[in-house]
Amino acid sequence: MSNKLNRVWRKEMYPPNNGNKRKSVSTRILLVALLAFGLSKCAAGQSLQVSSPNGVLRVVFSLQDGAPHYSVTRFGHEMIKPSRLGLVLRNAPSFRDGLRIVASETRSVDEIWTQPWGEKKDIRDHHNELRIVLARTGAPAGKMTVVFRVFDDGVGFRYEVADQPGFSEFEIMDELTEFALTGDHTAWWIGGYWWNRYEYLYRQSPVSVIDTASTTITMQTGDGLYISIHEAALTDYASMTLARKGEHTFEADLVPWSDGVKVKTAAPMKTPWRTIQIADTPGELITSYLVLNLNEPNKLSDVTWIKPGKYVGIWWEMHLQTSTWASGDKHGATTANTKRYIDFAAKCGFDGVLVEGWNIGWDGDWVENSELFSFTKAYDDFDIEGLSKYAAKKGVRLIGHNETSGGIANYERQMKDGFDLYQRLGVRAVKTGYVSHGQNIKRIDENGVEQREWQHGQYMVRHYRKAVEEAARHQIMLDVHESIHDTGIRRTYPNMMTREGARGQEYNAWANDGGNPPDHTVVIPFTRLLASPMDFTPGIFDLLFEEARPDNRVQTTLAKQLALYVVIYSPLHMAADLPENYEARPEPFQFIIDVPTDWQDTQVLHASIGNYLTIVRKDRNSQDWYLGSVTDEAGRVLQAPVYFLQPNMKYVAEIYGDGANADWQGNPYDMEITRQLVENTGSLTLRLAPGGGQAIRFRPATDEDIQKLSPAAD
Amino acid sequence: MSNKLNRVWRKEMYPPNNGNKRKSVSTRILLVALLAFGLSKCAAGQSLQVSSPNGVLRVVFSLQDGAPHYSVTRFGHEMIKPSRLGLVLRNAPSFRDGLRIVASETRSVDEIWTQPWGEKKDIRDHHNELRIVLARTGAPAGKMTVVFRVFDDGVGFRYEVADQPGFSEFEIMDELTEFALTGDHTAWWIGGYWWNRYEYLYRQSPVSVIDTASTTITMQTGDGLYISIHEAALTDYASMTLARKGEHTFEADLVPWSDGVKVKTAAPMKTPWRTIQIADTPGELITSYLVLNLNEPNKLSDVTWIKPGKYVGIWWEMHLQTSTWASGDKHGATTANTKRYIDFAAKCGFDGVLVEGWNIGWDGDWVENSELFSFTKAYDDFDIEGLSKYAAKKGVRLIGHNETSGGIANYERQMKDGFDLYQRLGVRAVKTGYVSHGQNIKRIDENGVEQREWQHGQYMVRHYRKAVEEAARHQIMLDVHESIHDTGIRRTYPNMMTREGARGQEYNAWANDGGNPPDHTVVIPFTRLLASPMDFTPGIFDLLFEEARPDNRVQTTLAKQLALYVVIYSPLHMAADLPENYEARPEPFQFIIDVPTDWQDTQVLHASIGNYLTIVRKDRNSQDWYLGSVTDEAGRVLQAPVYFLQPNMKYVAEIYGDGANADWQGNPYDMEITRQLVENTGSLTLRLAPGGGQAIRFRPATDEDIQKLSPAAD
Repeated sequence: MSNKLNRVWRKEMYPPNNGNKRKSVSTRILLVALLAFGLSKCAAGQSLQVSSPNGVLRVVFSLQDGAPHYSVTRFGHEMIKPSRLGLVLRNAPSFRDGLRIVASETRSVDEIWTQPWGEKKDIRDHHNELRIVLARTGAPAGKMTVVFRVFDDGVGFRYEVADQPGFSEFEIMDELTEFALTGDHTAWWIGGYWWNRYEYLYRQSPVSVIDTASTTITMQTGDGLYISIHEAALTDYASMTLARKGEHTFEADLVPWSDGVKVKTAAPMKTPWRTIQIADTPGELITSYLVLNLNEPNKLSDVTWIKPGKYVGIWWEMHLQTSTWASGDKHGATTANTKRYIDFAAKCGFDGVLVEGWNIGWDGDWVENSELFSFTKAYDDFDIEGLSKYAAKKGVRLIGHNETSGGIANYERQMKDGFDLYQRLGVRAVKTGYVSHGQNIKRIDENGVEQREWQHGQYMVRHYRKAVEEAARHQIMLDVHESIHDTGIRRTYPNMMTREGARGQEYNAWANDGGNPPDHTVVIPFTRLLASPMDFTPGIFDLLFEEARPDNRVQTTLAKQLALYVVIYSPLHMAADLPENYEARPEPFQFIIDVPTDWQDTQVLHASIGNYLTIVRKDRNSQDWYLGSVTDEAGRVLQAPVYFLQPNMKYVAEIYGDGANADWQGNPYDMEITRQLVENTGSLTLRLAPGGGQAIRFRPATDEDIQKLSPAAD
Repeated sequence: MSNKLNRVWRKEMYPPNNGNKRKSVSTRILLVALLAFGLSKCAAGQSLQVSSPNGVLRVVFSLQDGAPHYSVTRFGHEMIKPSRLGLVLRNAPSFRDGLRIVASETRSVDEIWTQPWGEKKDIRDHHNELRIVLARTGAPAGKMTVVFRVFDDGVGFRYEVADQPGFSEFEIMDELTEFALTGDHTAWWIGGYWWNRYEYLYRQSPVSVIDTASTTITMQTGDGLYISIHEAALTDYASMTLARKGEHTFEADLVPWSDGVKVKTAAPMKTPWRTIQIADTPGELITSYLVLNLNEPNKLSDVTWIKPGKYVGIWWEMHLQTSTWASGDKHGATTANTKRYIDFAAKCGFDGVLVEGWNIGWDGDWVENSELFSFTKAYDDFDIEGLSKYAAKKGVRLIGHNETSGGIANYERQMKDGFDLYQRLGVRAVKTGYVSHGQNIKRIDENGVEQREWQHGQYMVRHYRKAVEEAARHQIMLDVHESIHDTGIRRTYPNMMTREGARGQEYNAWANDGGNPPDHTVVIPFTRLLASPMDFTPGIFDLLFEEARPDNRVQTTLAKQLALYVVIYSPLHMAADLPENYEARPEPFQFIIDVPTDWQDTQVLHASIGNYLTIVRKDRNSQDWYLGSVTDEAGRVLQAPVYFLQPNMKYVAEIYGDGANADWQGNPYDMEITRQLVENTGSLTLRLAPGGGQAIRFRPATDEDIQKLSPAAD
């Protein structure tokens, strides 16, 4: 039942407030209990507070000798200890200390907005906001605003510098934001990367062994609470990484420009939101929409052309080294090969065909020679015009591919022409790529000199914004690989569909560490995937590919490949394997044909970070529900009550499960496909093999199904 | 849906078994895959196997150079590494090594049996059994049988010595059973106590820091699996403790007699079952009935006189030191005081009134002078005959109390006379007590000499069996304090109702460590309570009792005290506080009046060891459901879908929750009592304060409820 249905029959303080007599009552708790909801000022020193709508979370802002700090309590107990805030500026006075509160205001928001597409249709934005205007006490003058939004599931805060004398242009040399944790929590994390795409395996360790970390970083406290730190609405700023300071405090460590400046900006400006999600269970992190809620609403007036869907493509064969991106005998992006994929996509009802290696520039060392890429000229053996028409005739669209290898100047120079061309050819989605190494993003500075930038600094953030805006003008959806981390931009630009930003399937083809271990896909849903959809490219059916890549394999069962379509959310999901591998196994492939990529609702049934995860999602366009359950290297038997189904209605559960003897290592193809009638009062036993999974489609039962599957027929 | 409803529509190996081609296939896994279900012999060496009904668990028995070993796999991966088995005997040849398999047989059982009372009415016993007869290869001859029962939720095994020459009487000097764990699991444990009632706070630590442990010991593996080791059907043997051997192997360490012998026995004999429960989630440990399934069926032909219920008693006032067990001015067990409790019990509809200190023997140092206790003679100010009649008139029964302070000979001498008396007076339940220190149980040996025994050795195990049988003959239910650990005896003797065997409520009155910390009651449900019901004596309403015991208090909120009636299962539950404290708070007390102590079903909604736990139970005698949710020192917000309720039926949820500002430390009485309509498609938000809890009664809604509580009336 919703909150609206909760009618209070009797409500009482029982007995009236005699509980405070005890000697062990701490001053802090008493203080919180006595303060009115919302906002209060503490007489001694300057302090302001704001609590979440349900009163559980509370942010306390205070000045300590003029230096701004915040802390977060939950049920009156510290979750984030008093932590530094502030900006160190150049060409303008800093907001570091010597500050006082000159104004503050609060605001409450409770509204529901609708995603054009997503993992859940209607999102509730329910928060209390506290804005605090701080002024420098000394000369030169200057004002900065700190804004807190406190939700039931976490906190967001950011800095704003309003238009004022002395701040027309300035540089941020350091952001002083800290996250002072209350203990040596267990963290799931990767290093704090200024470059290289976040494509690492997550580590599990105490916070105290971390030097630097990228966000999203997720932690479990000693009390069994879960915290995840990230940022929202990164649009014209440097990406945030975290550096550990002291035993278990992180401080913001912004990715700098090549000249060492962190952010080049001018008033009025707003930083991204720093986000702290807090949950009692790891599953609640997954169904928290705090990061989206902190982004600006949709800026596109027409979104009818934005369509989630599934695609195949000329891609995996290059990773298997059976064809090449480069031209020549083994060139993958040929007209004939593309027609084969178009035919297959049409037969399966898929929406798109990605073609990598279609354009000039792939020959030689393309990572070094990014300026050679053309984004309009196809190789001779790729008939782009003819293929576009062929695809259209079959009801399929080509998906463009723009690998930049970090040559941003080269790409930006051609971007409009490229998007013009793609739009004319009926292309609706473009996969972009930014393969680059180290501090190697090529930028031409104002003097015409080439500078080398980090992959996640402000220069690249600006580039991504440019690309998404240009794409929107051309009604093009983006799927960005080697991307900056997602911070919920898709809310503002719903053509920003999906991205990479973690180790995807291709590592299974060639990584010299053996590929993604079985637990990889039960860690990223609680870390990387909290930020946004991911183009993981699941669905490899030939798991061993011994002839192509004898030293590698996929470390899952076949059933787990299917489950990933539900567990990992992406509005554009690839069926990543070769058509012939799907044709060889039509029964399990049916699940990939059926599974949607746009959802009405998402719920988590089982969640244990690094161990297992079961997610159910309701199709946005039908009464179907889908379940995906995945495990690490340990087999599991999980009970799944199916209470989410509509009451008093019979469904057929089409179950794609690991077979009795399945094991990712020795028997990955052992699979059982069964059907049974279920109702919302029932429960299913999910048996997941080591490295395995289970995928289920629940569809309303027809009379024929009921007759055929009823137990009475036994 | 039950298993019976699962009709397989299509079932296939997909594709037919081509998964074994991979180089990394381990021999072990292949072996398992190729072996037929049930039982097989391995050509090289002697090895036998048996798997669980669902095939997930497997026990492998093997002889290594003639020494018996077992191991347990789950999904083909080791859970218990090869571990020693064997018995070292005196006055008979040992079964240690030099053994061979001479016979074996398997058996499958799938049956449902009904508990006369309990946490769940119908229990399914579904297992595969493997019996292996081992013979000594050298002289003298001797045979021993090892029996394994493999369930889907764990394994039990025991030794049997059949009647045979040379084994008419013998002594067990050592049991060689090992539990070789696969890693340094996180354990929740107390030390391996040969004495003193298991009344310790559980520690959480890696296995590698444990020297000795009592069972039940519960562990979490690195893979997020849960293991709990205990024993079942301890009837004429020594209690098992565990001693660590090597990095993470435990071996059985039996509590000895005073002469060092572990067990005095004769063929035919059977040891208790050694039990290993294994689960994917901690909640599944709670709803596992493996220990009960390994006990003998009910031996009592008539169980109509066995009635779960609630009681009050003259008890807490002694712990508060406002009255005494001993005679004199402050004597608690007076006729007048008892009448007051009888009146109160009658008014509330409770079944019994416990009176401690009613009988002669409490004056002076009663722990040292156990022989002074009379179990038939009341103090002069306690009119036992008159009170029995008074109680009967009010529809209430007195509950007997027999504190032995370890004087077993004294107690056994009077037991029959005592039980005769109690039965005549209409007493249906007796609480027994065994307060003693160290190796101090008094036994008179065959030469008439007094020996001092440990509290948990075979002598005491035999005594408990005697007591429960004598009680059954007198239609008396037992509630044993300072007991040996429960091993499921209640299945065989359903008059063995409940017991202590862990730190109960009384530690909050006087423990010099400050009492039970908030996490105590979110640890014992996953450890001690796995073995059996516990007479925890919840329901203290005056949480601070500053006048009586200023240095102590109860470390919970008021709502948590209510939740404990559901979370902790006991067929006899005490309302432990003084009548005047309940009369001062009638609204929350209503929950204690309402809550049943006998259940149709039990389900776990949320479970995290040491953090939180939500249990729902269905009343056996109505359509009501009850929910109890408790947390440690951290506040929680837990979502509870109420899918367990009957579909298409409106219930009133009577919610006893922590108030918005509740906190066990500073504001423990803050409580909200509300009612709302719910259906099984709904979900409730459980908001638990730090150290708090929530109790809910769900009862079918009347038309009046529906009218009054419907949201339309808002």
